[in-house]
Amino acid sequence: MPGGLLTDLYELNMAASYLRRSMTGQATFSLFVRRLPPGRGFLIAAGLADCLQFLEDFSFTPDDLGYLHHTPGYGEDTLRAFASLRFTGDVQAVPEGRVVFAGEPLLEVTAPIAEAQLAETVLLNHVTFQTAVAAKAARCVLAAGGAQLVDFSFRRTQGIDAGLAVARASAIAGFTATSNVAAARRYGLAAAGTMAHSFIEAFGDEEAAFIAFAEDFPGAITFLVDTYDTGHGVRNAIEATRRLRLPGPVGVRLDSGDLAALADARIFASGGQGGDRVFVQAAAGAPIDAYGVGTKMGVSADAPYLDSAYKLAAYDGRPVMKLSAGKASPPGAKQVYRGPDGDVLALREEPPPPGHQPLLVPVMRKGRRVGAQEPLAVAQQRCRADLAWLPPAARALRNPVPVPVRLSDRLTILQDQVTRDLRRRAGVPDSPEGR
Amino acid sequence: MPGGLLTDLYELNMAASYLRRSMTGQATFSLFVRRLPPGRGFLIAAGLADCLQFLEDFSFTPDDLGYLHHTPGYGEDTLRAFASLRFTGDVQAVPEGRVVFAGEPLLEVTAPIAEAQLAETVLLNHVTFQTAVAAKAARCVLAAGGAQLVDFSFRRTQGIDAGLAVARASAIAGFTATSNVAAARRYGLAAAGTMAHSFIEAFGDEEAAFIAFAEDFPGAITFLVDTYDTGHGVRNAIEATRRLRLPGPVGVRLDSGDLAALADARIFASGGQGGDRVFVQAAAGAPIDAYGVGTKMGVSADAPYLDSAYKLAAYDGRPVMKLSAGKASPPGAKQVYRGPDGDVLALREEPPPPGHQPLLVPVMRKGRRVGAQEPLAVAQQRCRADLAWLPPAARALRNPVPVPVRLSDRLTILQDQVTRDLRRRAGVPDSPEGR
Repeated sequence: MPGGLLTDLYELNMAASYLRRSMTGQATFSLFVRRLPPGRGFLIAAGLADCLQFLEDFSFTPDDLGYLHHTPGYGEDTLRAFASLRFTGDVQAVPEGRVVFAGEPLLEVTAPIAEAQLAETVLLNHVTFQTAVAAKAARCVLAAGGAQLVDFSFRRTQGIDAGLAVARASAIAGFTATSNVAAARRYGLAAAGTMAHSFIEAFGDEEAAFIAFAEDFPGAITFLVDTYDTGHGVRNAIEATRRLRLPGPVGVRLDSGDLAALADARIFASGGQGGDRVFVQAAAGAPIDAYGVGTKMGVSADAPYLDSAYKLAAYDGRPVMKLSAGKASPPGAKQVYRGPDGDVLALREEPPPPGHQPLLVPVMRKGRRVGAQEPLAVAQQRCRADLAWLPPAARALRNPVPVPVRLSDRLTILQDQVTRDLRRRAGVPDSPEGR
Repeated sequence: MPGGLLTDLYELNMAASYLRRSMTGQATFSLFVRRLPPGRGFLIAAGLADCLQFLEDFSFTPDDLGYLHHTPGYGEDTLRAFASLRFTGDVQAVPEGRVVFAGEPLLEVTAPIAEAQLAETVLLNHVTFQTAVAAKAARCVLAAGGAQLVDFSFRRTQGIDAGLAVARASAIAGFTATSNVAAARRYGLAAAGTMAHSFIEAFGDEEAAFIAFAEDFPGAITFLVDTYDTGHGVRNAIEATRRLRLPGPVGVRLDSGDLAALADARIFASGGQGGDRVFVQAAAGAPIDAYGVGTKMGVSADAPYLDSAYKLAAYDGRPVMKLSAGKASPPGAKQVYRGPDGDVLALREEPPPPGHQPLLVPVMRKGRRVGAQEPLAVAQQRCRADLAWLPPAARALRNPVPVPVRLSDRLTILQDQVTRDLRRRAGVPDSPEGR
């Protein structure tokens, strides 16, 4: 979808107004998460690949313009301007797979203000959702204590493209396979799956179903043993293994009941995973080799959204911010510097503090990607490294404490100055509350 | 997307095995929600339109088959069978917009087992997500006490097609407009939107921004007044209204702060809506005419998934079920009859109890839709009528009590009989627990 109408109406209104008034100055918008949800000590940057694709493809189709033609406020001049509008700006972003915290820009767009404004809704959508899910998936990886995790979420994700995005985000976070075949093909992931209860039921006889499946898929046999009774299911699996002289150990999958009651098999657990039960079973040392993690990871059930924002930080060389109660954010184009004692939110032109590395890198210049699209393995490697770096307090599964993020002195001074200027111009009395 | 690979790998495995073994008997699968989430007294059926589209379009592309060619277990015979496979079955379903409860089939598919099996993942995805969101949106409508509701969720939905689906589902539930322009166009909804804080900030001067916006969009002016200070914002809005001689009353939008502190304007509230604040403000009689409802409705934040299932109920004339602990569901093709004392879950061939009406209707025969695609207004009307019918205990916003659903005598008898048969065949001792 080229995307001109994939946006909120107010973005189109504002863009039309900017263009009509020749407001073509460069705007910098900053996309960040205001606060971490309860129970999150970190986030994992994700969604950037879809953002870059969207920006590269951005345009209004003749159909889009035809629709707007019947919308009040969209005259011929505006439609002509929209017809030739493309995204021509620059983007800096935190690469996918990196650990990030609240208040840190995940992405900054600098472009003529109409272009940057029109991208808001889709950029927020991709980054907010995929970052939330990658963080949830990373928590599952930390909780699973070395067991393999397989994405089983496709049937319960919020839509079809959510299923694709979850498979990719969970792969970045360290999942080893997905049940979602379309996602496996698109992103080059390992596809995994065995059989459902319906297969056993259609055959009627459990052992006959196991034998048929083993004959048809001799490469990777995992028997689902809890359709009728787990004990009998395991005996039928062993019997089928013996009759077909399959090389052991046999794999069994449990989708319900007591997952820790079996020991002589490679155990694959599914059903209600991705929540606290992963933690409980891993902590109890249950002999489980792999988990199918579905619903609760796929919708990030305990934190299904992030409090994200896409805020104008500068327009036409002038740093800007709003003063709305509880929603103010520092002005100006920014950088995040990561150091041994935490992160520093700084102005982009500031040099790094000693021993600090920048998180945001240029990813798009004049509407074109910087470099080729990176392989998923690069993001996976980044995530592994950042999870290993993460201090124990931030990676804790219960009551995590994020790494501290402080404002640089220059950013603090600028924020104070812009706040004072805005209050004076708006005739608002100074008060410490609004800061 | 034609959809052959939009599925979990195990569905493909099972379908391949069925086809190889000439298991082409008719299967009936039943799609239902096992339990209502806490805080839900009812659900609103949604997602059917996307399901029917998927089934009508179902096929494997040459690319799909090329991918499977390299997947273990998929030989030439299987790929040939997949190449000609289409959905040729029948579907009965609860029409979109109707109130439904736990255990009631939302949809039943009857088709050759491979076809019915392959559809599982996508059917579950559409129905689970859209039914969850329609129910959440209906709760917002009940809570808003007559104020208009506008869908503002696009930036925070879990993906782009989720944004489209939420706009549609919330329209079914009674929302009057959406900010999502692509959804407004696709589904013929009213698009709504004004300006963002960035617009005020780009102009620098708040009154100048208001005047520019009112000149450019004279038809529907709602000023966003809380960029710097709400009191000053309102005075600037009044000043702009006076200078342009706009007909009153002026509309103002608040995105933060105390939403009930203003009275002399048409007030549009947004920011953190869709959760408890809607209820609080409506209950407090705040003078708010319309709410922009975003994140919490768009992801159904307090219940972001439903415990849904797609279970084989009959194969080749034989009723089936599983016995898995806590996951058993009654066998056989079903119907739901709604009567004055609640709903009755019955076998499909049973006549309705006196004074009861069936909820499921035929929507697809031999792979083709029954009738044309229905206009959204029909589903909206159904939802209005069913919400009006809903007993106070079920529509309560706090601690709702669903309408009771009882099993018909014939279904109870069949379930007992199939359970006993399965236990005997599997050699499992009878126990009341597994029932």
